[in-house]
Amino acid sequence: MSAVTPSDLSRLSLNQETIKQWSLPELAEGCAKAGVPGVGLWRAPVQEYGVERAARLMRDAGLAVTSLCRGGFLTAVGGADRAAALADNRRAIDEAATLGTATLVLVAGGLPVGSRDLHAARERIADALAELAPYAAERGVRLAIEPLHPMFASDRCVVSTLDQALDLAERFPSDRVGVVVDTYHLWWDDRIADGIARAGDRIAAFQLADWITPLPAGVLLGRGQLGDGAVDFRRFRELVDATGYAGPIEVEIFNETLWSRDGAEVLAEVADRYVTHVLRS
Amino acid sequence: MSAVTPSDLSRLSLNQETIKQWSLPELAEGCAKAGVPGVGLWRAPVQEYGVERAARLMRDAGLAVTSLCRGGFLTAVGGADRAAALADNRRAIDEAATLGTATLVLVAGGLPVGSRDLHAARERIADALAELAPYAAERGVRLAIEPLHPMFASDRCVVSTLDQALDLAERFPSDRVGVVVDTYHLWWDDRIADGIARAGDRIAAFQLADWITPLPAGVLLGRGQLGDGAVDFRRFRELVDATGYAGPIEVEIFNETLWSRDGAEVLAEVADRYVTHVLRS
Repeated sequence: MSAVTPSDLSRLSLNQETIKQWSLPELAEGCAKAGVPGVGLWRAPVQEYGVERAARLMRDAGLAVTSLCRGGFLTAVGGADRAAALADNRRAIDEAATLGTATLVLVAGGLPVGSRDLHAARERIADALAELAPYAAERGVRLAIEPLHPMFASDRCVVSTLDQALDLAERFPSDRVGVVVDTYHLWWDDRIADGIARAGDRIAAFQLADWITPLPAGVLLGRGQLGDGAVDFRRFRELVDATGYAGPIEVEIFNETLWSRDGAEVLAEVADRYVTHVLRS
Repeated sequence: MSAVTPSDLSRLSLNQETIKQWSLPELAEGCAKAGVPGVGLWRAPVQEYGVERAARLMRDAGLAVTSLCRGGFLTAVGGADRAAALADNRRAIDEAATLGTATLVLVAGGLPVGSRDLHAARERIADALAELAPYAAERGVRLAIEPLHPMFASDRCVVSTLDQALDLAERFPSDRVGVVVDTYHLWWDDRIADGIARAGDRIAAFQLADWITPLPAGVLLGRGQLGDGAVDFRRFRELVDATGYAGPIEVEIFNETLWSRDGAEVLAEVADRYVTHVLRS
């Protein structure tokens, strides 16, 4: 383990869900103190605190907001459900613009109740993107499609691979619709090197969590601290860097054990693991 | 719901883990009574009962043994672990031959402790297949690589897609190394139609379970009864049939609720769901 220097952390961003036990002021103060220059935010805590107020808080702490999670859930078949989803995504775009982030992460949504048609659901996402992308572009926000692990395909996200995300994104200009590369969701895929190369300048966010087992019930909170699992982080970072991506590297871990610990201690561990496993190992 | 006729069930095979509460004699009697002509067996209960004795039991009941689960776990790096895995697979091949099934299902194995190199693990499987396939062929047994859902990639099976399984299988003659198409593991993959067409005469087993959520802790026992989840079974069956595959269709569901019920009642439900969702719907 080597000493962590400030320049090591120049690209590091802490997604706030990693240290969910922190309030937004604690997050701002904790990151500033630790020399972590970026934060990824979630809509619910930001709305609760006030969007403009959260924007000011981060700005005053010298922190960049590297992404807002999340819009999406765009697989409704039509009618009121679809209209509500589109309206909610416009609000998410407005919030991203207010926070000063160019990246709104979209989780596509699962199969509607009773449907078994993944292809049709994916096409409805494309239709929704066509409606939302111009609205986002006017506000300086890029929509970033996040492929989620195939274990979420039925109930959360019918977009399961980077190639599928790119099949959708490439119907739009790259400055309007990008993709998220998250190691937790994509680590198992033997096509990932080609997928990342194909993504090129569409990489709107690069997120990290490790893959650990056994998975907990519901599987949502089973992500591991960097270095604890199966992911080869340095390889991912090198593949992403090779596209010319020089943006933030965001650590986003949902893990109840991390949430039960002292936030500053978790952040120090994240920074240390990041240097060891992502930058150097 | 239509009446189930004997000819409807001509391709149906019951994997014994679906009704784990049944002993082997109960399985033989229950399938014969229900007009289900095939059974998929597992090594541990067969060994406990006696391999030759189990073979005779199934033969006397007029049942075909459509597959034996399972060999594999071939990702050990070398030394005693690898030798032990190869020896165990040779025993599994012998057992399959004794049972009179031409199909030994292989679950590849996960990453060795501390390894993050999926590619190397997959190559070690190819090396092991090269050692085992001639031994199996001499005994009339085909090795059938089963891709498991990507949520098992680290701890159970580094082969996650049908294309990956075919990349391995195609290094060998198709009568020596085939693949398993299991809807539970592959339903989410948008490349599956091409993969099944590519598989052609390498399809050694066609297995069914539905995808339901939420997943239980450990995720192994989360499979759903046919029709309860997200899988479009008829589409899968039509894709598999289009390759010329006319073999058994094996129902393999690991689900604690099914295990807590009366076995004959579960089998009647399986047959009914099979006709409704696989053959007709």
